[in-house]
Amino acid sequence: MVDVNGIYYLGPEGSFTHEAAIILKGELKSNPTISSIFNAISKTNNSIGVVPIENSLEGPVNETLDNLYTYDDIHVIGEIERRIELVLASKSDDIRKIKKIYSHPHAFNEARERIKELGFNDYIPVESTSKAAQIASQDLEAAAICSAFAAKLYNLNIILNKLNYDNNYTRFIIISKEIRFNGDKSMVMFTVPHKPGALYKVLQVFYEYNINILMIYSRPLKSIPWQYYFYLEYEGDMSNKEFIEKLLKSTSVLKLKGSFSKIR
Amino acid sequence: MVDVNGIYYLGPEGSFTHEAAIILKGELKSNPTISSIFNAISKTNNSIGVVPIENSLEGPVNETLDNLYTYDDIHVIGEIERRIELVLASKSDDIRKIKKIYSHPHAFNEARERIKELGFNDYIPVESTSKAAQIASQDLEAAAICSAFAAKLYNLNIILNKLNYDNNYTRFIIISKEIRFNGDKSMVMFTVPHKPGALYKVLQVFYEYNINILMIYSRPLKSIPWQYYFYLEYEGDMSNKEFIEKLLKSTSVLKLKGSFSKIR
Repeated sequence: MVDVNGIYYLGPEGSFTHEAAIILKGELKSNPTISSIFNAISKTNNSIGVVPIENSLEGPVNETLDNLYTYDDIHVIGEIERRIELVLASKSDDIRKIKKIYSHPHAFNEARERIKELGFNDYIPVESTSKAAQIASQDLEAAAICSAFAAKLYNLNIILNKLNYDNNYTRFIIISKEIRFNGDKSMVMFTVPHKPGALYKVLQVFYEYNINILMIYSRPLKSIPWQYYFYLEYEGDMSNKEFIEKLLKSTSVLKLKGSFSKIR
Repeated sequence: MVDVNGIYYLGPEGSFTHEAAIILKGELKSNPTISSIFNAISKTNNSIGVVPIENSLEGPVNETLDNLYTYDDIHVIGEIERRIELVLASKSDDIRKIKKIYSHPHAFNEARERIKELGFNDYIPVESTSKAAQIASQDLEAAAICSAFAAKLYNLNIILNKLNYDNNYTRFIIISKEIRFNGDKSMVMFTVPHKPGALYKVLQVFYEYNINILMIYSRPLKSIPWQYYFYLEYEGDMSNKEFIEKLLKSTSVLKLKGSFSKIR
């Protein structure tokens, strides 16, 4: 979609974000944290990043929202959606050889029922499902709860698949210093004056222009206890200047994070 | 405030929730998870619970919101607010004897700068700050990053205080099967019809009655990807039936979680 110097993604190799980022053209660079990706993009020219923003079961990824609010020079230029599917994988293809299971705690929680049927009630927690896959690739007695993508990357055999719920999806965003005003969706972040009806008056602007709000989250402004900023995505683009001007009037701080479309 | 059989709080002993719960009259019972507290209250008569609902830096406690939405028989009857203050504590009062520091990862992140000044760049992660205090009470070479409350409970000396930011507060709620219609604040949870302007029309009802919205969060409905429920707190009580009827008309599902006041 863009010609870039590098694509920073939330690693390690084999992560769900890595799996999402491979559909983009460019050199992929693994990065350990979401905050360090925002920092890298802000400091380099012509690089982009891929980070998770929302999971259908867990809700928003707060570190991504807070960085989008903090970095005024970073915008959203695309989104990628992926179903999260967990498998049990090991170097050996003989399930009887497995003595221990490595997993991220969230992944284990989702897979618990299926794993119990195999006679495993416990696991060894590690920081990511891709780390679990890496460990399993070096130990014949270990298995990992990870994605099929990570299993393939680490040359593991899939012993069991579909370990988790059907309705587990994650949305990833592509971030850049560029801003776009055309796309299927747009993102804005704002604070409202501290008085009754303030949020209502912002939503009124959307209603007036018949614009569909896709989601709204509030997050604490860390500088002042119990004060919030809002994160909002809506259907349509940002090309209507009159609408943006009305939004500006009804908010205290308004940050246009750009228009974007889903990349398939 | 109420005569109860038992007060379930999010433990272990020495937790921030424990510290909040001690102002209530009744037998305190430590419980390992938020979900198990909701379950216990739903199944017993005349018991109440204390759980964290929101932190001024981290935002809402999702497990609490999701359980409030799930358990129709459980309501909110009070709230307690506490400043979160971290100290460095150990059995010995000689800082030179300390070889290792135990902490919860969040607490260490906040205390990192002050701890660095002591020459410590690393720590041993444990599941809670009270667990850290318990370990430090059994090892003369260990110190814990924990609350002054936990330090006192485990007979530790406070070596350094004010390790963290000033603006770190947590709100705890008191939950019960009883519902109240009088108090300073009220809580409702709802879903809206899937069409443009749906949330706007709910907020319009608040605006019409000149009611101040204190906070609004959206959370994923786990049953359907990218569908949400809203959690909303507002100033004032629930005694106006006309207002509640209008809310009912503008929402798809409406759950009245009750009116409550701050307990000091």
